[in-house]
Amino acid sequence: MLGLTAGTLTTLAFIPQLSKAWTSKSTGDLSWGMVLTFTIGVLLWLIYGIWIDSLPVILANAVTLLFQIGIISLKIKYG
Amino acid sequence: MLGLTAGTLTTLAFIPQLSKAWTSKSTGDLSWGMVLTFTIGVLLWLIYGIWIDSLPVILANAVTLLFQIGIISLKIKYG
Repeated sequence: MLGLTAGTLTTLAFIPQLSKAWTSKSTGDLSWGMVLTFTIGVLLWLIYGIWIDSLPVILANAVTLLFQIGIISLKIKYG
Repeated sequence: MLGLTAGTLTTLAFIPQLSKAWTSKSTGDLSWGMVLTFTIGVLLWLIYGIWIDSLPVILANAVTLLFQIGIISLKIKYG
């Protein structure tokens, strides 16, 4: 329950960021280092979640990964 | 091991972001919604990590929390 709430928050956090990047068409202040390192990390968290059989870790990171792919796409477009 | 690598990456990811914000003095493209929601989520992950007794979850989120406080400080300063 706590894990699911935590996962929901660290996942939903990227919706306002995606929305902001989408409407402002500006992603210059987002660091490529952060976006790419974070995405690889989320992918590993997902594998770790499957490994330790933790549903909150699995769900949170699967959805976060999708949002990161969205942010990467916008950053490729807007720089 | 996998969890520690995952946690290291999703934690270290915020160093280039902090460094970029510090040197560019610009955080306008970072969404407050992301920064604040993510920080609260990281705090809950930390508590969850203590709960399930997972060292990777505890360590990663403790350090990430410090970086988020740094980003919040810079965003308060630069908007």
